Amino acid sequence: MTYIRRTTRLGARKLFFSEMTDSPTESSAGKRERLVASARILLHQQGVERTTIAEVAKAADVPPGNVYYYFKTKDELVEAAVAANSGDIEHLLGALERYRSPQARLKGFVRAIVKQRDLAARYGCPHGSLCQELGKRDDDLQRSCAELLELPLRWAERQFREMGRRDARELAVGLIAAWQGALLLSNTFRDPDLTLREGRRLERWIDSLV
Amino acid sequence: MTYIRRTTRLGARKLFFSEMTDSPTESSAGKRERLVASARILLHQQGVERTTIAEVAKAADVPPGNVYYYFKTKDELVEAAVAANSGDIEHLLGALERYRSPQARLKGFVRAIVKQRDLAARYGCPHGSLCQELGKRDDDLQRSCAELLELPLRWAERQFREMGRRDARELAVGLIAAWQGALLLSNTFRDPDLTLREGRRLERWIDSLV
Repeated sequence: MTYIRRTTRLGARKLFFSEMTDSPTESSAGKRERLVASARILLHQQGVERTTIAEVAKAADVPPGNVYYYFKTKDELVEAAVAANSGDIEHLLGALERYRSPQARLKGFVRAIVKQRDLAARYGCPHGSLCQELGKRDDDLQRSCAELLELPLRWAERQFREMGRRDARELAVGLIAAWQGALLLSNTFRDPDLTLREGRRLERWIDSLV
Repeated sequence: MTYIRRTTRLGARKLFFSEMTDSPTESSAGKRERLVASARILLHQQGVERTTIAEVAKAADVPPGNVYYYFKTKDELVEAAVAANSGDIEHLLGALERYRSPQARLKGFVRAIVKQRDLAARYGCPHGSLCQELGKRDDDLQRSCAELLELPLRWAERQFREMGRRDARELAVGLIAAWQGALLLSNTFRDPDLTLREGRRLERWIDSLV
C-alpha cells in the first residue's frame, strides 16, 4: 500500500489507497485517464463544489474544450472519479486476502488507513468527504458515491462473520464509523497522530472480539 | 432536547441540538438573528459552497442589500452560524449535568444524537459536515469550526476521567469518532436505523467501561 507522491502541476499529487505504478497524470497516459486522476486529486483537496472542469483540465494538461468529448457534465467526471476510487478500495481489500485469518485482514485494513494519516489530516478521507458533501444532494451521483462506504462495510461484515460473530453487521458499522470519524477528527484538528492512536485502539478491539 | 420543525419558506425548518422556544426566523425576531437561523438551516441542507448570501437573505425575509450591514462576507455569516451551533452544543452538554454519574451523562449524549437520526439521515450531522467541508480549507473559519468537535471531545474526556479511566482521551476520541462516523453512514445510506443501532451499541460500550 503506497500512496503516490507526484510533483507536477498540482504540487504534491497523492492518491489514497492507490497501487498504480504508472502515472496516469503524465502526458503519456490517455486524456481520459489523466482527467480522472486529476479530478480525484482536486476533489480530495477541494471538494466537489469548489472544483471546476477548467481546473481539472488544466491540471491534466488537456485542452478545456476536449473535456466534453469524454465527460458531458461535471457530474459525469465526478462519477468516473468515484468509480476509480471504488477500484482502489477493491484492490486494497483484494490485497488483504493474503492474510489467513479474518482478524488479520481487519487489522491490515486498519493499518492501511493509518498509513494515510498525513494526507487525511490535511484533506480528510477522499471517500468519506465525497460521501459527506454529496450526502446533502438526493440524486444518482449521491447513490453511486455510497458504494465507497458500502464496499468496505460489506467486506468488514464478511470478516466478522468469518470470526463467528453473530453481530457481524453491527461490528462492521462500528469499524467503518470509527474509521470515518477518526479521519474527520484528524482532519479537523490537523492531527495525524489521532489516527495512529485510534488505529491502535481499533486493533486491540478487533483482537478482543476473537 | 427537541429539534424545531417549521414550515415557513425553507420547508421543514429544523435545527439540531436546539432548545430555542422562540423562533428567530419569524419576522418578529431581529434581522441578524433571522439571518443566522436561516444560514444554519441552509448550511446544513446544502453545505457552505452551495449556499449563497442571497438565498439566506430570502429565507430570512431580509432584503439582500441589508445583509452587508450585519455580515461583510459570507465567511462572517458562516462564522456566526458556527458560533450559534457551538452555543447549542454547550446548552446540550449543560443540560446533561442533570444526570448524577458520568456514564449516565455520556449515555444521555448518545441518546440526544439518536433523537436527531431522521434529520441526520437526510442531511448528515450539521457540525460534522461543516467540519468536513471546511477541513479542506486552511484558514480562520476552518479553525473556528473545529470548536464544534473540540467541545464535545473535551466534555467526553472529562466524563471518562470522572469514571476513573486513565485512557479518557482515547475513549473520548472513540466516542466522538463513532458518533460522527455513524451519522455519515446513516446519511450516505439514508438509514436512520443505523444510528439507532449504533447508539445502542455505544450505550452498552459505555456501561462496559464502568
